[in-house]
Amino acid sequence: MTDAETSKKLAKVVFQPSGRSGKFILGTPVLEAARELGVPIESVCGGRGICGRCQVSVAEGNFAKFGVSSSAQNLSERGPIEQRYDEKRGLAKDRRLSCSTRIEGDLVIDVPAASIVAGQTIRKDGSTTGMKRNPALRLCYVELSVPDLTTPVGDADRLVQAIHESFGIADTIVPFPLISEVQSVLEKAKFKATACVDISGVRPELVAVFPGYTEELSGIAVDIGSTTVAAHLVNLMSGEILASAGRANPQIRFGEDLMSRVSYVMMNEGGREALTQAIRGCVNELTEELLEKTGLNRPHLLEAVFVANPVMQHLFLGLDPTPLGQAPFNPAISRAVRCEAAELELNLGAGAKSYFLPIIAGHVGADAAAVILSEQPQKSGKPVLIVDVGTNAEIMLWDGETLFAASSPTGPALEGAEISSGQRAAPGAIERIRINKQTLEPRFRIIGTQVWSDEPEFTEASKATGVTGICGSGIIEIVGEMLLAGILSPEGIIRGPNTAAEEKRLVANGRTFSYVVWQQAPSLMITQNDIRAIQLAKSALYAGVKLLLDKTNLRGVTDIRLAGAFGSYIDPQYALLLGLVPDCETSQVRGIGNAAGQGALKALLDMDARTEIEEQVLNIKKIETALEPEFQSHFVRAMGLPNSVDGFEKTRKHFGMKPLVLDANSGVKKRRGRRRRD
Amino acid sequence: MTDAETSKKLAKVVFQPSGRSGKFILGTPVLEAARELGVPIESVCGGRGICGRCQVSVAEGNFAKFGVSSSAQNLSERGPIEQRYDEKRGLAKDRRLSCSTRIEGDLVIDVPAASIVAGQTIRKDGSTTGMKRNPALRLCYVELSVPDLTTPVGDADRLVQAIHESFGIADTIVPFPLISEVQSVLEKAKFKATACVDISGVRPELVAVFPGYTEELSGIAVDIGSTTVAAHLVNLMSGEILASAGRANPQIRFGEDLMSRVSYVMMNEGGREALTQAIRGCVNELTEELLEKTGLNRPHLLEAVFVANPVMQHLFLGLDPTPLGQAPFNPAISRAVRCEAAELELNLGAGAKSYFLPIIAGHVGADAAAVILSEQPQKSGKPVLIVDVGTNAEIMLWDGETLFAASSPTGPALEGAEISSGQRAAPGAIERIRINKQTLEPRFRIIGTQVWSDEPEFTEASKATGVTGICGSGIIEIVGEMLLAGILSPEGIIRGPNTAAEEKRLVANGRTFSYVVWQQAPSLMITQNDIRAIQLAKSALYAGVKLLLDKTNLRGVTDIRLAGAFGSYIDPQYALLLGLVPDCETSQVRGIGNAAGQGALKALLDMDARTEIEEQVLNIKKIETALEPEFQSHFVRAMGLPNSVDGFEKTRKHFGMKPLVLDANSGVKKRRGRRRRD
Repeated sequence: MTDAETSKKLAKVVFQPSGRSGKFILGTPVLEAARELGVPIESVCGGRGICGRCQVSVAEGNFAKFGVSSSAQNLSERGPIEQRYDEKRGLAKDRRLSCSTRIEGDLVIDVPAASIVAGQTIRKDGSTTGMKRNPALRLCYVELSVPDLTTPVGDADRLVQAIHESFGIADTIVPFPLISEVQSVLEKAKFKATACVDISGVRPELVAVFPGYTEELSGIAVDIGSTTVAAHLVNLMSGEILASAGRANPQIRFGEDLMSRVSYVMMNEGGREALTQAIRGCVNELTEELLEKTGLNRPHLLEAVFVANPVMQHLFLGLDPTPLGQAPFNPAISRAVRCEAAELELNLGAGAKSYFLPIIAGHVGADAAAVILSEQPQKSGKPVLIVDVGTNAEIMLWDGETLFAASSPTGPALEGAEISSGQRAAPGAIERIRINKQTLEPRFRIIGTQVWSDEPEFTEASKATGVTGICGSGIIEIVGEMLLAGILSPEGIIRGPNTAAEEKRLVANGRTFSYVVWQQAPSLMITQNDIRAIQLAKSALYAGVKLLLDKTNLRGVTDIRLAGAFGSYIDPQYALLLGLVPDCETSQVRGIGNAAGQGALKALLDMDARTEIEEQVLNIKKIETALEPEFQSHFVRAMGLPNSVDGFEKTRKHFGMKPLVLDANSGVKKRRGRRRRD
Repeated sequence: MTDAETSKKLAKVVFQPSGRSGKFILGTPVLEAARELGVPIESVCGGRGICGRCQVSVAEGNFAKFGVSSSAQNLSERGPIEQRYDEKRGLAKDRRLSCSTRIEGDLVIDVPAASIVAGQTIRKDGSTTGMKRNPALRLCYVELSVPDLTTPVGDADRLVQAIHESFGIADTIVPFPLISEVQSVLEKAKFKATACVDISGVRPELVAVFPGYTEELSGIAVDIGSTTVAAHLVNLMSGEILASAGRANPQIRFGEDLMSRVSYVMMNEGGREALTQAIRGCVNELTEELLEKTGLNRPHLLEAVFVANPVMQHLFLGLDPTPLGQAPFNPAISRAVRCEAAELELNLGAGAKSYFLPIIAGHVGADAAAVILSEQPQKSGKPVLIVDVGTNAEIMLWDGETLFAASSPTGPALEGAEISSGQRAAPGAIERIRINKQTLEPRFRIIGTQVWSDEPEFTEASKATGVTGICGSGIIEIVGEMLLAGILSPEGIIRGPNTAAEEKRLVANGRTFSYVVWQQAPSLMITQNDIRAIQLAKSALYAGVKLLLDKTNLRGVTDIRLAGAFGSYIDPQYALLLGLVPDCETSQVRGIGNAAGQGALKALLDMDARTEIEEQVLNIKKIETALEPEFQSHFVRAMGLPNSVDGFEKTRKHFGMKPLVLDANSGVKKRRGRRRRD
């Protein structure tokens, strides 16, 4: 056969951006060519020209590197299917439906990201951008043959066959409750239906079946915190976050911190059930709000992904959390939990699935796993320390070879709780502060306004909220500023006034002194007890970090990431000044926002991310701080400000502080027992 | 190394009856050696010397064919574990626990059938004898390590690990509702528990978890007939049927036959639900009865297997049966249905599984599939015809290469319904009859006594029940005897009396005559309409059989099996005389009892039987009688007695009848339309 003859029959087709190429007989539909080459072009309608998700365009020109001269002329002309799609839903001039377009010559075909089933999300909503979209659930539109006497095969069986034939998804399980649904939907819709199939298990499984054609499919990602619960509603067909909502965890009425909720369960008949009902109810309320905001249809909300700490996870799943309250902190289950949303009493679409990320240890939960999934420290090429500061602190350290994880019992002081003037981050709370080193006068900013308190507009700007308290990041700054202003000794003692002017700010409080931040009602001050609480919290955190560092050969870390709401608002230089994290350049510490929530979104959008984190958690080296004799001594030694023994030379240099010379115990005034509040 | 040296270290071990052998290092436990060779010795306790199911004995002597000289001396002596077992539960002198016995020299080891996990059932209860016992559910006793701080792995995860380590069952799924159960059972039972695992799926799945050690595990096999529902309770650890129970299908109040029940569903709001509730309630009542009879514990009743015709299957599964009532008779599902017993509202043990055999076509149900599973016609080496006569007749024909199946709309006449004096088989019903060819006087026997009606003891013997009606097998005999006595013409016409004496037996009934069987109250007679009903039924059955034979090259069949209650009680020679089945020697026709029920038991005991029948049904050639133009002509031509055109020479010879010469239509008096009553 001559080249001329061959070229009449075969054409070379290159798909971009993957670069996969092959030769195809003229007349082959582009979608078929793509499938043969393993290019994952999406199709909901199974190649019927309805969904328009398989759009491609032709790169025109001579592509020497592929040896291909590509032209839109080398595609069949727009046929009636594409014309109909264009009329109904619009098809850009340079776009073609790959299911309905045939190869008529050499081509370089561009597959836009939106057409790639496992592509990256492209909507710029700031949260799921760049995440891979490869959801566990797939929509499969099928048209079954009308039943006849010669093929006595059940409706459900013919649906399974059609899903196999049109989408290559073989041997789908039809769960019992859906058999009846399939029967009635197929009959009503004249054997045209869209099946939703979960392809993440060992065998694909039917999740729902809708009459006719639909491409609505959504899911929620929920981060269940001890204090707040946040949920995002995501369009699983685009990866876009359509709405977000949050509310306070209603379990707070049973106990502010985790241990008091566990105690409630232990002390009260039906206590576990009450806490479970509370949190499930909260998720249902969030779901209602999200559906209302978006106008989406509940039956199409078919997936939910959850992250939480182990106690929250146990309570949400209806498991007894009491073993988590005492050594050996034994969880009921540590692997990921895949179950029906209905089994969690969630009011999603009928048949909806749910997925709870795996937990790492009895103290280190699915939220920490989600942080790892989101941040991927193992892929950063250098050692990484991640600290997720919540009511307790999860610490993850990647030393280049091993990922270590531990939980440290910081207590809630770093979030502003158990601090005399502390409060949760909310409008009116002081979040930024500077203390004049000469006059000791403070100037500050509250949440809700950009105006500083010494500016004339402040009175007006703060009118709506007033100055109500000091949130977590504000307390860290105040303590840091007090240290820099010489009000606070490295041991953490608030000094008394040296001048009459100072008496306005430094007031006696029994046998100790307090620093007055705000004199109007409510008056806000930092007491000696507050300083102690912060010292205890920060040294618990630092001791945990130090413990992990001890396990490695690292002398320090140059990539420190602070996760969680607190981590996002804290000014890294004050975190360093107080010695929350090991000494480094301030530029090497950064907030990464709600990484746990990001991890939940990732697991919602990409089923491979689930497998990934399920395998990763098995390889994480868990450090139980309570088992490590060094923890107590690290804890005691870390009480100083910034730290008694660990140098913090870079931090001192940054703030222009003198080198510190102290003996190991000088930072400790009253030694207290370890507290556990996770 | 010399032979002597080798023999010091290695011993040859042969397991019987499999004959598998290998060499093992001295000191190897026998159970371990068996597992290495793939000899399936059962163990519930995972080799802890508790269950005693791994018993073996040593065959003593010189086994030339294996080159082994075997002696009980070549086993380690009875240790404390075996002594404890002997004291507690008794261990025969020649028996050893293979888990606790070490190889110390060459051995031929006999593995008794009871110790083989996939062995045959050995109890002689007449129903499961010889069936393979290889149940889907396995009991696995495990002792978990007590949780400690260094292994922060969940209870459920450690259970899964232990099942893997002790039983080689990897990666068991823990369904969501069981996570909490696992947590509480493990804690209560100090981390010793017996897990029940379903190993029949793609991945093993936890079904239940019991505290401590148990070896109680049972299941039910249920045959849901249109008229009667029969259930067996089976010990899944021995294969023994522990109790059986049956009762009338309570759906009868909604309609005697299947079509009237389908009509009820179509005509009544909530009709389907009412019928579903009725049959599920009936199964629950049977379960109660079986548990009460045996004293077994409900939590250990964890498996249920069902067979039924397609309409019964749909109603039991809660599916709409109306599509089955009209062409194309489209079922909702034809594959086997595996689901939770709770999803069927069955009150078995928590977590119990259920399995419904696959159906073959819209008319040929799981009951027919069960008959095939039980009878295995494909393995018989010659053509086999199986007829399951119920309210409609399932016909299965194996021609040596292909298995054909059809359903024929016989209606209930062959079961004694729609016959003027007919009744269900019950005490008091005439089941055997002979007519004196000279006097036309009948003598008969009723169910419940062995005495014939012309014997003096009959009055006394029949006192308890009276003579209440004629059951299906009785009617076949009466019609046959009437034919032999010359009362009935080959066209099926009852003649009038020729003598005054005959007037007592042959009485006018409008324009036709009836034959009087019993003159006392209630008087029992066979009317011309009764004869017509039997003719219609038998010709429908015969036409179905003929249709299948037409598909093959067979000229006849020499192995005819009659299944179902009717098939079990009918005298084969009368079945041949009436032409229910093709002409053959009477010895070639036999009743096989409730083969559908036997198939259900088989599927309950042996998970491989499920896979087998699931694959077989896909290869069955389904013949839809309604689609075959030949059916009507076969039907019409089969109305004669025995048959108008098909010879039945062997039958005539057997009964000493003259050859029959008739034209093709002479057996038909009034041609009626086809009735469908399945």
